[in-house]
Amino acid sequence: MSHVLTLNAGSSSLKFGLFETATDPVAVLTGLIDQIGGAATIKVKDAADETLAFAELSPEQAANHVGAVQASLEQIATYFPEARIQAVGHRIVHGGAEFSAPVEITDDVLGRLESFVPLAPLHQPHNLAGIAAAIEAFPEARQVACFDTAFHRQHSFVQDTYGLPRAYYDKGVRRYGFHGSSYEFISGAVAEIDPALHDGRVAVAHLGNGASICGIHGGKSVASTMGFSPLDGVAMGTRPGQIDPGVLLYLMSEENMSAAQISDLLYTESGLLGLSGLSNDMRSLLASDTVEAAQAIDYFCTRIRMEIGSLAAAMQGLDGLVFTGGIGENAAAIRAQICAGLGWLGIEMDNARNAAPDPRISTDNSPVPVMVIPTNEELVIARAAARLL
Amino acid sequence: MSHVLTLNAGSSSLKFGLFETATDPVAVLTGLIDQIGGAATIKVKDAADETLAFAELSPEQAANHVGAVQASLEQIATYFPEARIQAVGHRIVHGGAEFSAPVEITDDVLGRLESFVPLAPLHQPHNLAGIAAAIEAFPEARQVACFDTAFHRQHSFVQDTYGLPRAYYDKGVRRYGFHGSSYEFISGAVAEIDPALHDGRVAVAHLGNGASICGIHGGKSVASTMGFSPLDGVAMGTRPGQIDPGVLLYLMSEENMSAAQISDLLYTESGLLGLSGLSNDMRSLLASDTVEAAQAIDYFCTRIRMEIGSLAAAMQGLDGLVFTGGIGENAAAIRAQICAGLGWLGIEMDNARNAAPDPRISTDNSPVPVMVIPTNEELVIARAAARLL
Repeated sequence: MSHVLTLNAGSSSLKFGLFETATDPVAVLTGLIDQIGGAATIKVKDAADETLAFAELSPEQAANHVGAVQASLEQIATYFPEARIQAVGHRIVHGGAEFSAPVEITDDVLGRLESFVPLAPLHQPHNLAGIAAAIEAFPEARQVACFDTAFHRQHSFVQDTYGLPRAYYDKGVRRYGFHGSSYEFISGAVAEIDPALHDGRVAVAHLGNGASICGIHGGKSVASTMGFSPLDGVAMGTRPGQIDPGVLLYLMSEENMSAAQISDLLYTESGLLGLSGLSNDMRSLLASDTVEAAQAIDYFCTRIRMEIGSLAAAMQGLDGLVFTGGIGENAAAIRAQICAGLGWLGIEMDNARNAAPDPRISTDNSPVPVMVIPTNEELVIARAAARLL
Repeated sequence: MSHVLTLNAGSSSLKFGLFETATDPVAVLTGLIDQIGGAATIKVKDAADETLAFAELSPEQAANHVGAVQASLEQIATYFPEARIQAVGHRIVHGGAEFSAPVEITDDVLGRLESFVPLAPLHQPHNLAGIAAAIEAFPEARQVACFDTAFHRQHSFVQDTYGLPRAYYDKGVRRYGFHGSSYEFISGAVAEIDPALHDGRVAVAHLGNGASICGIHGGKSVASTMGFSPLDGVAMGTRPGQIDPGVLLYLMSEENMSAAQISDLLYTESGLLGLSGLSNDMRSLLASDTVEAAQAIDYFCTRIRMEIGSLAAAMQGLDGLVFTGGIGENAAAIRAQICAGLGWLGIEMDNARNAAPDPRISTDNSPVPVMVIPTNEELVIARAAARLL
């Protein structure tokens, strides 16, 4: 039995998945390591999503992503001693302007991925650390990069550029978009559930601690709310979403803030956390009865509606809406609040369905159907790695 | 016969208007001084918009806004020696969070206006210079401030804030919106032309060298594409419109650009000029046959359509669309290109009407009517000043 391993390295986390690849890859073991660099823990689940293990990492393994990869491999050796890992699929946040599909990681490709660090300084280095650790652990396996940006690389020029002098576009200041593996999975799922809808114009709202919305027409990304960085678009757990560039000029000139300080503010202190003063976790906000929590939720939902309107304009219409991601899949109250203001677009929610998506949550008569589809980025990455074998 | 004078001071320009105020103010003389601080010229027109004079300013008068105001007054003295100016209405770009209506300029108010300079460092100082010059010239007249921001001050909290920690909202980092006098004029004109539409949800696209779009419901601003600064929203002659804050972090960290350099880039080198590499003037782009000019126009029109979709979401629907401003009033080809992609919103253009607006440019069957209405910010300011008398 041959296997592929998937690695999804965040700034302080590592998700891993072991997939059997006899046919379409099937996850047999998944895991999450949290708080790398601190009191890191590891959680391991089986194919039925039952927890097999939950433990603290040793200080050596907790220290960095190399240690975290080692810890993952120990768990795999424990539960699947017979696993033959022939390929490792890596989620890579940035593929620059050139990578529009998964690619095997050669020395040349690795050099290109390193050259994208300035485009994603907070995320790309962790992805590169994961690659280095995997090469060390599996020198014989093939390494495959799957890019968050790849799904959006066919955007038209006007959906790829900002209104800046062209020299900036040429040097890579573009609307890359992210969450590409998630959108690819959802688009494929829509094709299975409703082929006619897949041919149409669908807004997919990937709402998690990071969040974006993508306008997909005929299975291809037309436009996305995230652009050059993961900051733009809809509000997120700790990121602001859309913000006037004049605010940054003000922070620089009037508050004398440095790039590092502004980056901290926008990546870690803003969004739901900043507006609520309470939490970046939507569950906490929904459980709270403060005015600030309600306003943070209202802001989140209102900006999502506005971005859906904007994407509908980019696609010249809307034939369907799909929710996914942690909030999109689990927060029925948020889905209801968003859709309550979208009647003008032809969206009519069914409250009973919304409580238990099948996957549809709109009425039979809703001109624009609405669905909830759990995403599976790891499967998309595993498939890309398996295709290579 | 009593008169009011209106002064609209830009960074290197001064518009002035003399209005008779026996009844509703009527412009009897208007003028424009351009290139203050350089080879300044003055152009004066009569009530029928016929040019009365065109001349270079003396070096003393060309040097600054005080000199420019003096030059204006000399023209008024020449053509209306009997004018009795009892009030001067000033267009003020920023009224902060507190001014939601015109206000007489007392010493206390002047102090407040000075405190808003950090919010509009490139524009507010010229407005203050205009006030100082007018007080010196007309010590007996009453001075009235009319704010670009005032029309938007009734936005809901979610349309007034960004997704930042609340301390920033409290210290004034808000979605102010601009072009308020223009929107007030257009909303009043819609009320006269089509009272039912005025009660509905109207997107007003003020498209000039500066450009924004406002969603107006029942005569009140719901949301606007400009926010904290005049940079955001749709692309403009030399400003980018919407841009990812991550781009600014990149310019700071990777290009080592200062706040002043980024400000120059975003205020003077971007938008239509930056994308076309040719001109900030839409007439030049429409006359050009380069790919870059066509792409700049496509970007301009596409982002306007997306912002109209976003504003429709904010208002939960759209009942009408109005074009105004230099481009909106005069560029039929741009109106056609924008509206060609808005059929999904119920907009159907009539090409013959678009060539000669009456003011309607949509077909009789268009579910959403589209109009062209020339704006008149000076009249709004003159009316505010006259109301005081």
